[in-house]
Amino acid sequence: MEVARAAGVSKTTASDALRRSGRVSEKTRQLVAETADRLGYTPNLSARSLRAATTGAIGLHLPEVLTRSEYYMSFVFGVIDQASRHDYDVTLLTSRGARARAAFHRLDGVVLGDPLVTDPVVHGLLASSVPVVTCERFTGDAEPAGTVRSDHAAMLSLLFDRLHDAGAARPALLASSTITDWGAILQRAYREWCERRGTAVRLRELPYGAPPEVTQDEIRALLSAEPGIDALVCAPDGSAAAALPVLREEGREVGRDVLLAACVDSGPLAHTDPPITAIDLRPREAGAACAELLFDLLAGRADEGAVRDLPIGLVERGSTAPRG
Amino acid sequence: MEVARAAGVSKTTASDALRRSGRVSEKTRQLVAETADRLGYTPNLSARSLRAATTGAIGLHLPEVLTRSEYYMSFVFGVIDQASRHDYDVTLLTSRGARARAAFHRLDGVVLGDPLVTDPVVHGLLASSVPVVTCERFTGDAEPAGTVRSDHAAMLSLLFDRLHDAGAARPALLASSTITDWGAILQRAYREWCERRGTAVRLRELPYGAPPEVTQDEIRALLSAEPGIDALVCAPDGSAAAALPVLREEGREVGRDVLLAACVDSGPLAHTDPPITAIDLRPREAGAACAELLFDLLAGRADEGAVRDLPIGLVERGSTAPRG
Repeated sequence: MEVARAAGVSKTTASDALRRSGRVSEKTRQLVAETADRLGYTPNLSARSLRAATTGAIGLHLPEVLTRSEYYMSFVFGVIDQASRHDYDVTLLTSRGARARAAFHRLDGVVLGDPLVTDPVVHGLLASSVPVVTCERFTGDAEPAGTVRSDHAAMLSLLFDRLHDAGAARPALLASSTITDWGAILQRAYREWCERRGTAVRLRELPYGAPPEVTQDEIRALLSAEPGIDALVCAPDGSAAAALPVLREEGREVGRDVLLAACVDSGPLAHTDPPITAIDLRPREAGAACAELLFDLLAGRADEGAVRDLPIGLVERGSTAPRG
Repeated sequence: MEVARAAGVSKTTASDALRRSGRVSEKTRQLVAETADRLGYTPNLSARSLRAATTGAIGLHLPEVLTRSEYYMSFVFGVIDQASRHDYDVTLLTSRGARARAAFHRLDGVVLGDPLVTDPVVHGLLASSVPVVTCERFTGDAEPAGTVRSDHAAMLSLLFDRLHDAGAARPALLASSTITDWGAILQRAYREWCERRGTAVRLRELPYGAPPEVTQDEIRALLSAEPGIDALVCAPDGSAAAALPVLREEGREVGRDVLLAACVDSGPLAHTDPPITAIDLRPREAGAACAELLFDLLAGRADEGAVRDLPIGLVERGSTAPRG
């Protein structure tokens, strides 16, 4: 590329310097940056893509605590769908440390589902020369090459509005941990909604991967602490279905005495009695959108720092029918 | 290794020759084979594992037509669970041709879920030097290094026995295509069961990946061709749930007028009205068992050609309750 030639360094060095990959000296970095400024060069991914688009594989990394959820299974298959369309393989990165770093270099790019600030693999990837697309925002310091996100705050607020319209005055949130940006956004959106409506916050947080029995114990504890609850929104994947028998054993008729909704739609929720209202996060589309953004970045069809919105939906079912 | 030294060839050549990998001449292969015989050498995987266990990744390849099923999602996560325990990454092979062959060489071994004889990637893998473990038998010529399989014939026969005991005299099978060994085994087991019981075969076959509307049309066609059907067993993943509304619209009460069962259990089946009896194929355990067999082969803890049995189960629910 032109900048490399003018600065008298190799293309790889110029590319690393512009990307601040940590592999070049501060002096070289400055030289390259000044040359790029002088030439009016805006860093984009084409140099990276020319260098990197050779392995035939993209990577995918998920927070380990989450891999048991149906959401992530669909997300993974969305990434695979899209990669397959480009005749690319998908490497699921489970390894840590030196082996993980070696794996990065055999990949054209990586998709991170829900990047945790506490995950060393996430930090390693974001510091590497491999372009990274995250699903949901990374709340740490580094900037991914691209981000796909949805407006979870607006959707949760809409859901609580609907519950309110259906007659619920004291709705509660069974929350997910704030270690993911999604979990944090939901808790914040619920608190803000309560403030706007002038109603008390009724919230209980579950760690990721809590088994159904623990989930049910927490729901019992929430109902016993807040017996006036007339609507329950369950954030953790699978927790709304687990709530049904608990509400029934407490003598509450779901859809009448208490409204019930889930923040993560899944197959069973359409078939429970009553069927459960849920936010459709469209995980397969989310995975596909992340992979597509990565391929667009690699091909120079998207600019570094691109943020794309994935629309999500609300599926209203019998569990939130208006009380008559 | 001793054989290589005695035959005067490199370890790699000796190893390839013993594995019949197709990369050595027939003359060399014979020389190596005779030397091995003379030395009383039994080929095992230790030479392979020493050579191969260096990439930190295993591969996984699935038939493209099947990747939308919940079964395969769980299977994939079973492989990932196990790989993660060994600090290995998992590369999902979607690519074809030269790129696929290049990918094989960056893998210590590969798991094949339901290897189709019609899939060129399957043939490429089985002809390569990479050890392969299949889930279900490969019905073509090549021999995988290991196989994990379940006794689907016995389980389907047990299911039809239970339906018979519950009063069904004219049970039908909505079958899966015979392109997978599983699909072929089920059709054969059903036909044999009918012959043993002296009842007519009532069977309709669906291609893999048929959408729910097509599935429902086929069920309507089956019911109209065979109005006397008093039990329906649905093989394709998701087809039993799709059958429920069709049976209802035909005025048949499931669990009374007609019994209904699925060959592939999944989340929704426990929640339908009535809940649907199903064979639990234990896909997560199957994926984990395949990966574990691969790691055992790589470490010399299992012999080439090993076959392991994965127990499966029958979950009886309201859809097959005895008729009173």
